Amino acid sequence: MKLTVLKQYLNESIGHVSKAISSRTTIPILNGIKIDVDSSGMILTASDTDISIQSFIPAEDNEIQVIDLKQSGSVVLPSKFFVEIIRKLPAQQVEIEVKDHFQTTIRSGSSEIQLVGLDPEEYPIMPGIEENKRIQIPSDLLKTMIKQTSFAVSTNEATPVLTGILWTITDGKLKFTACDRHRLASRETNIDTEEGMTLNNVTISGKTLNELAKILPDQNTLIDVVFAENQVLFQINSILFYTRILEGTYPDTSKLIPQFYQTEIVVNTNELIDAIDRAYLLSREDKSNIVKLMMLEDQSIEISSTSSELGKVTEELMTSSMKGELLRISFNSKYMLDALKVMDSEQIHIGFTGAMQPIIIRPNENSSLLQLILPYRTTG
Amino acid sequence: MKLTVLKQYLNESIGHVSKAISSRTTIPILNGIKIDVDSSGMILTASDTDISIQSFIPAEDNEIQVIDLKQSGSVVLPSKFFVEIIRKLPAQQVEIEVKDHFQTTIRSGSSEIQLVGLDPEEYPIMPGIEENKRIQIPSDLLKTMIKQTSFAVSTNEATPVLTGILWTITDGKLKFTACDRHRLASRETNIDTEEGMTLNNVTISGKTLNELAKILPDQNTLIDVVFAENQVLFQINSILFYTRILEGTYPDTSKLIPQFYQTEIVVNTNELIDAIDRAYLLSREDKSNIVKLMMLEDQSIEISSTSSELGKVTEELMTSSMKGELLRISFNSKYMLDALKVMDSEQIHIGFTGAMQPIIIRPNENSSLLQLILPYRTTG
Repeated sequence: MKLTVLKQYLNESIGHVSKAISSRTTIPILNGIKIDVDSSGMILTASDTDISIQSFIPAEDNEIQVIDLKQSGSVVLPSKFFVEIIRKLPAQQVEIEVKDHFQTTIRSGSSEIQLVGLDPEEYPIMPGIEENKRIQIPSDLLKTMIKQTSFAVSTNEATPVLTGILWTITDGKLKFTACDRHRLASRETNIDTEEGMTLNNVTISGKTLNELAKILPDQNTLIDVVFAENQVLFQINSILFYTRILEGTYPDTSKLIPQFYQTEIVVNTNELIDAIDRAYLLSREDKSNIVKLMMLEDQSIEISSTSSELGKVTEELMTSSMKGELLRISFNSKYMLDALKVMDSEQIHIGFTGAMQPIIIRPNENSSLLQLILPYRTTG
Repeated sequence: MKLTVLKQYLNESIGHVSKAISSRTTIPILNGIKIDVDSSGMILTASDTDISIQSFIPAEDNEIQVIDLKQSGSVVLPSKFFVEIIRKLPAQQVEIEVKDHFQTTIRSGSSEIQLVGLDPEEYPIMPGIEENKRIQIPSDLLKTMIKQTSFAVSTNEATPVLTGILWTITDGKLKFTACDRHRLASRETNIDTEEGMTLNNVTISGKTLNELAKILPDQNTLIDVVFAENQVLFQINSILFYTRILEGTYPDTSKLIPQFYQTEIVVNTNELIDAIDRAYLLSREDKSNIVKLMMLEDQSIEISSTSSELGKVTEELMTSSMKGELLRISFNSKYMLDALKVMDSEQIHIGFTGAMQPIIIRPNENSSLLQLILPYRTTG
């Protein structure tokens, strides 16, 4: 293998695939990045078995010659050092030459780096994706949906399926659901699908989707998502992002959501965030995160938290509207802030069905996003 | 005590004094910030016994009424929560009221915070500074001198005096010296002093001076430095920064610096930094940080490092000039990078007196800054 490649393209590709490299891998060759080169271009591959990412550098890009190929071939190079040194090379051109026993020489300007390469035959083969179902979704929408739900996944590895986000498709609607034992986040969107296409029990790790979100372009590019037996493939321009589907059956969460409300309020999102944030600061000191919400006769609400050591924070906030019984309810302020911060709406609607029943938060004029928080049982 | 103060001024002052708060203090009241208010203004005080910082908020600033005083008084408030909550208060005005038993109420907009305050009588008294010697130094120069030397202090607490920077004054010259057992950094500057003023054996913790540097304004303000028996006071506009002088006698380092050179090179600073940085990346993987420098007949130098596991980095660099015997020498690349990065000069001069003798690095046309690195003994 011998070629010259533009540093900028190589760096960008390395940046993408290196997100799949885990420092905790037990398979030594997965500490490396695999490079395959032929006349069409260069493919970089990295994997931690949960995620595999491939990035393609074309030989030519918009009439720019990106790669000058002398000889095709493959090699696996130690990722950590490779990533760092490429970024710091002095010249725009990087020459890579692989000789016997995968001895690799990288030249750029007056720098010469000799690297002990590994045999690419020992690198795991990418999962075969037998195409099953395919959808297209705009990059920025996918990013938003991940942001609006991923924080609510469980961190408890004892129930792996709850560490993921459930993807379902019915009647042309794609829905994300995430929940742990204290809260639930869900977001729906209309998508174009083949007639009658449905998707059930496809759960993808929340951590993995957050990694995916870092690669997703901000522009409104269409992302192809291919669902296979136990793998999902995301095609993002010249990047292939593979991940496995989590095992286990996702619980039915539909019954958690109340059908009617006893009390409903509409309130300015940012004002509520700021008030709860100040109460949270104090509640955090007590490690409880408990904040109380009390509805008052004059359509205002009082948010408060108490720390036996430090004191008390009391906030008063006018609602835009309040209907139903006046309630007192306590909740985890950290969970409430997580839910409020992804609302993306000036006014939000909060529905209550009693002091011990789930709190439901939605943007005021949009029902595609729903956040549920279970209240705390407190005295007084 | 009762007053209203502009949040912006209070926040800025809290920002300054909070640098003196240590999370590891064993004296509970030092977890607090002391507030003293009278008709002239408000003084905030924080201390971790090594450093004490006072910041003054004037009642009036450029015809802006900053403080509206109702009643003078003092209180100590829990710093961590106080710092965070003030930053997040909703309104520009902050009312602080202290009642019986130092029960404190903070009001701003629709927020009300009750805090358990502590008795200011229990707060340690600031060190008495019996004025002894005083100098003035521009803020940006002091900042630069700290940056150019503080990285070279020892981190070994077994020899406390070496964890500090030695300040000496002779013949109108202020000199900073820092050293551990492997390197030395020194920087000199002319200052206006009283006739015949000298300063010996004043050593101030490197960590403390780095904290001071964070407060020093970037503008060319004159800082007053007052040296007392065992304390130093820095006066920075409305801030007083007290620190103690480290105990022990600083070693005589003058004999470490060679009087003549066997070999001298002049080289472009940034090119050398970049070349050593790439060699460092590899040397770091072996945890040795060893890099070799070899002088070649054609006035160039070769920088290289080797890792048995990963490979080798070789860099070639043309010098601007080279005089004397051709040398091979090995050194700690991390130490060399630390020294080079504070050079502030396009070209640097490096002097050698043999493969086992100290390496001396200076800006090419300025002798006020000197960096010394001891070489490594290596084979081959």
